[in-house]
Amino acid sequence: MPLRLTGLIAATCTPMRPGHAIDLDAICPLTDQLVADGVEGLYVCGSTGEGVSMTTDERKRVAEAFLAAAGGRVPVIVHVGHNSLADARDLAQHAQRAGATFTSAVAPNYFPIASVEVLVDAMATVAAAAPELPFYYYHIPAMTGVDLDMIEFLRQAGDRIDNFAGIKYTANSLDEYQQCVALDDGRFDVLYGYDELLLPSLAVGARGAVGCTYNIAAPLYRRIIEAFDAGDLARARADQLRAVQMIRTLSRFPFLPAVKAVLAVIGAPCGTCRAPQPQLRDAEVQELCAELEAIGFFDWARRTTDALLR
Amino acid sequence: MPLRLTGLIAATCTPMRPGHAIDLDAICPLTDQLVADGVEGLYVCGSTGEGVSMTTDERKRVAEAFLAAAGGRVPVIVHVGHNSLADARDLAQHAQRAGATFTSAVAPNYFPIASVEVLVDAMATVAAAAPELPFYYYHIPAMTGVDLDMIEFLRQAGDRIDNFAGIKYTANSLDEYQQCVALDDGRFDVLYGYDELLLPSLAVGARGAVGCTYNIAAPLYRRIIEAFDAGDLARARADQLRAVQMIRTLSRFPFLPAVKAVLAVIGAPCGTCRAPQPQLRDAEVQELCAELEAIGFFDWARRTTDALLR
Amino acid sequence: MPLRLTGLIAATCTPMRPGHAIDLDAICPLTDQLVADGVEGLYVCGSTGEGVSMTTDERKRVAEAFLAAAGGRVPVIVHVGHNSLADARDLAQHAQRAGATFTSAVAPNYFPIASVEVLVDAMATVAAAAPELPFYYYHIPAMTGVDLDMIEFLRQAGDRIDNFAGIKYTANSLDEYQQCVALDDGRFDVLYGYDELLLPSLAVGARGAVGCTYNIAAPLYRRIIEAFDAGDLARARADQLRAVQMIRTLSRFPFLPAVKAVLAVIGAPCGTCRAPQPQLRDAEVQELCAELEAIGFFDWARRTTDALLR
Amino acid sequence: MPLRLTGLIAATCTPMRPGHAIDLDAICPLTDQLVADGVEGLYVCGSTGEGVSMTTDERKRVAEAFLAAAGGRVPVIVHVGHNSLADARDLAQHAQRAGATFTSAVAPNYFPIASVEVLVDAMATVAAAAPELPFYYYHIPAMTGVDLDMIEFLRQAGDRIDNFAGIKYTANSLDEYQQCVALDDGRFDVLYGYDELLLPSLAVGARGAVGCTYNIAAPLYRRIIEAFDAGDLARARADQLRAVQMIRTLSRFPFLPAVKAVLAVIGAPCGTCRAPQPQLRDAEVQELCAELEAIGFFDWARRTTDALLR
Repeated sequence: MPLRLTGLIAATCTPMRPGHAIDLDAICPLTDQLVADGVEGLYVCGSTGEGVSMTTDERKRVAEAFLAAAGGRVPVIVHVGHNSLADARDLAQHAQRAGATFTSAVAPNYFPIASVEVLVDAMATVAAAAPELPFYYYHIPAMTGVDLDMIEFLRQAGDRIDNFAGIKYTANSLDEYQQCVALDDGRFDVLYGYDELLLPSLAVGARGAVGCTYNIAAPLYRRIIEAFDAGDLARARADQLRAVQMIRTLSRFPFLPAVKAVLAVIGAPCGTCRAPQPQLRDAEVQELCAELEAIGFFDWARRTTDALLR
Repeated sequence: MPLRLTGLIAATCTPMRPGHAIDLDAICPLTDQLVADGVEGLYVCGSTGEGVSMTTDERKRVAEAFLAAAGGRVPVIVHVGHNSLADARDLAQHAQRAGATFTSAVAPNYFPIASVEVLVDAMATVAAAAPELPFYYYHIPAMTGVDLDMIEFLRQAGDRIDNFAGIKYTANSLDEYQQCVALDDGRFDVLYGYDELLLPSLAVGARGAVGCTYNIAAPLYRRIIEAFDAGDLARARADQLRAVQMIRTLSRFPFLPAVKAVLAVIGAPCGTCRAPQPQLRDAEVQELCAELEAIGFFDWARRTTDALLR
Repeated sequence: MPLRLTGLIAATCTPMRPGHAIDLDAICPLTDQLVADGVEGLYVCGSTGEGVSMTTDERKRVAEAFLAAAGGRVPVIVHVGHNSLADARDLAQHAQRAGATFTSAVAPNYFPIASVEVLVDAMATVAAAAPELPFYYYHIPAMTGVDLDMIEFLRQAGDRIDNFAGIKYTANSLDEYQQCVALDDGRFDVLYGYDELLLPSLAVGARGAVGCTYNIAAPLYRRIIEAFDAGDLARARADQLRAVQMIRTLSRFPFLPAVKAVLAVIGAPCGTCRAPQPQLRDAEVQELCAELEAIGFFDWARRTTDALLR
Repeated sequence: MPLRLTGLIAATCTPMRPGHAIDLDAICPLTDQLVADGVEGLYVCGSTGEGVSMTTDERKRVAEAFLAAAGGRVPVIVHVGHNSLADARDLAQHAQRAGATFTSAVAPNYFPIASVEVLVDAMATVAAAAPELPFYYYHIPAMTGVDLDMIEFLRQAGDRIDNFAGIKYTANSLDEYQQCVALDDGRFDVLYGYDELLLPSLAVGARGAVGCTYNIAAPLYRRIIEAFDAGDLARARADQLRAVQMIRTLSRFPFLPAVKAVLAVIGAPCGTCRAPQPQLRDAEVQELCAELEAIGFFDWARRTTDALLR
């Protein structure tokens, strides 16, 4: 049985300075806060990390900085997906040399992908560049438009990619997700990727999840998992509802800029986002904070189960 | 607190004779089998019932026949949605006179619906034609293309439609579904509509569900609910996985014709479907049955929890 | 060679009284104005005519009224499409008895249509109910979601539907449209349906067109055809640009209600639209008129070539 | 009045060796053939050129090779679009240093673009990196999902980007295209991008067009323009129909691999395509050639008007 990821894996924000240069110095405090919050892994340079908006050189330096900051405390998955598979391979080789625990890649997303075979071919090419690290395919059809049959993908990828670990599955088709988790007696590690559906994903078998809003509310999600594991569905549901409301509030604004704006408020400032993400105006930041305040976010988002029950 | 629907509500098939005339005589045996299977309500002339493929006169006769067959044993929701709201009102008036328990309507689906306000207006018009019956809006964006904010819809419909009961919610956005269920301390009855996601919908708060494949496998779904209520998630998950596999198998064929083909095998023959549903060829029916056999469908689909545990 | 439609076919609005009852009395003046405007055919109870928002009885009365109003001056195509094919057949039979020149039907649009074969089957059923009238399939994927290969459809429909005339083609894929027009040396009559693309459709071979905004600006479109036929592309293009700007202006409002609002201004009042079309507020009507005024609509929309050149 | 592009601009294929390394040596013969075929410009490293599937270093070398091969005979537009705007700027700076005539960029296509303002910001950033070269925005919503209002884009980009030239417009909404061409008395250069709609685009005002299949059939498209300019629409239409049929045939196969397979047959071999483009099997290449033969492609695709009329 290969290494498996369980629990909360934070899809980390990439800290940026005014003008949007990478801010390597802010990576350590963010990582420390995430580890203190109970996060059990880091997924770096993915969608939340604005990976595709960076140069390959920037991505390498960010990956190195998170690896150094993690210092072995939690595993680190480095996202290496790129429209240019040669660049993706370069990033994967670097990740292996730099000491990453896993690599992962999204499908190339400019040209349509004609079939599962073509997708497996592309992912095999990338995974082979870091042969010592297990590899996760990053399935996120809302971003890539690549919405192929993941059961068939798992079957073919399991046969053809030696270091294949599973999927980071970011779609709301929990029926297919359940089948992926269960396939061949749970042969594959299928991490769930929509924070707003963590509880229902647990109900159908998720054991690990990768999320964007874990940057700002990991304790909330830990409580959901703890309550679920304790068989207290009512409590899990109440906290999941808070997560859903938080995400609905964030979604009224440009999402990633809103998450970074909240990070500044809760003590792990990561600056703003790069184009093509829009910038939040000051008035929008204030409105966002007021709306989060109104739903109690600052009371419940970052308190542990113990603190809440005390 | 108004009457609430809980448990499994079968979206009934409409029996048809060769040539696709309505087969009123087959409605009684189908209803008896569904009640025997533990179904707690009937949703008639909806998507599964090919409601929009019938004339209003046919729809009235089918509704009457199901009401007579149910004989008060289970509540009957009559779907009255129609592109022509005058026809929808006519069907709603008839449903009330005929003794239905609820009415329900899908959005008109030819012209795009410009806003939540316009949708509430349209549904208010329909609901008002059967003022003594509680009314459910039938949300099914995959069919209608109408994919408006259901939280906002509930707020406005709750204010403006006196006999508003809630939503038959058929979409896989379980985050919005959870919010709908929880809104205003559970003011609305929000029935869940995708059979393949029954377990995760229960996890976020569903108490009633309307389903197509309950026609052929209601006991399987009852076992999911019973296991869930007993806190035995492992067992619920195993049966939900069976449901997912069954639906994946049915989906390889034209779906409604496949469901009717299975009904013929399990002793409640309902004939075939009307155009624009395609007809299954004999070879397809055999292939479907072989595939269902291969996943054990005929062993597990219709056995009760007791029978399975014995 | 069967009868062919050429020139401008107005997709007529259905006049309605306050409260949205059908206003049969207003059909004669509208028809007279359209004929005076140079329209060469009427397409009644289609999308523009809100056909699917009426009962079958209302549709019959409206068709009769337009047939009487036309009085043989121009051919009348009666749209009979309906989700219930039995209703569509009933409407087609009535159209033939009532003296229509053609029937036409949109695909049933609630259930997805699985294949070209299934679509041809459905249309054959409808066309056969009015065997003495040539039949046009009404292709409008933006409304129905039915976006099958029209070349393949023409081949199969041409073989299997005796009274098949062609397609009312409402899509902006002018490459497929050109192939349809040219297929088998122009065997089929393929009327073009997007007013904003009349000139480019003429360039690839259109000879007839069915349009909504011909209700309010038929002379503008006649000028486009006259200039095109005279080889004066610059003039055709200038008038087509006006049409595009007019439609862009109308599109900033709910479209059909905006067209009816303009009809009231130009002397052929048709009331307002039925739900699920929204109602324009007075302020919106004024804003619409001001915007149309600003682009010169009231100067150029309804003047003939002669009047303009004089 | 700035420099304007007119006539046929070939979106050049990027030649590749077995194993998919860039084949710089094949660029000269391809360029010579295109110039001999009457192409009046080259658009390099775009969609057809698999630009996003290459590293930035490869893109620079390919751009240099086309610039050297063109040798000033025709203008060269270098596509520099990239998900990472820093990479796009790097490519634009290089293009200017290397002697390109224009730069052009597609929108970043991983994250959704929230508004016209955000898109203009992103394009301004890229265009500013090559301030001496006019810049075209490359609008291709079918690939990028970015489908914003191009009239509004032109207005804002015209105000805010000093070296803004216009749009390479690749969408079938010829109504919006006509407005773009006509805006502010033709202030912007709006090149049309769908080969299958060249004739209708000419009808609404196109003067230049960028195309993929000009690699294999530029003379066919020149004949369309010549016939159109001579007022001989029947001839233009006949050749446009051939183009449509050719593209329909190519579309039955993976498109870009099919174009490269044809290039090998007509004497300008460019190898095969990189992942994620699929590879054509030998049997598919033979089938493709047979289908093209059957429609006469090898007779009419590359003959000049004179040769045809002789």
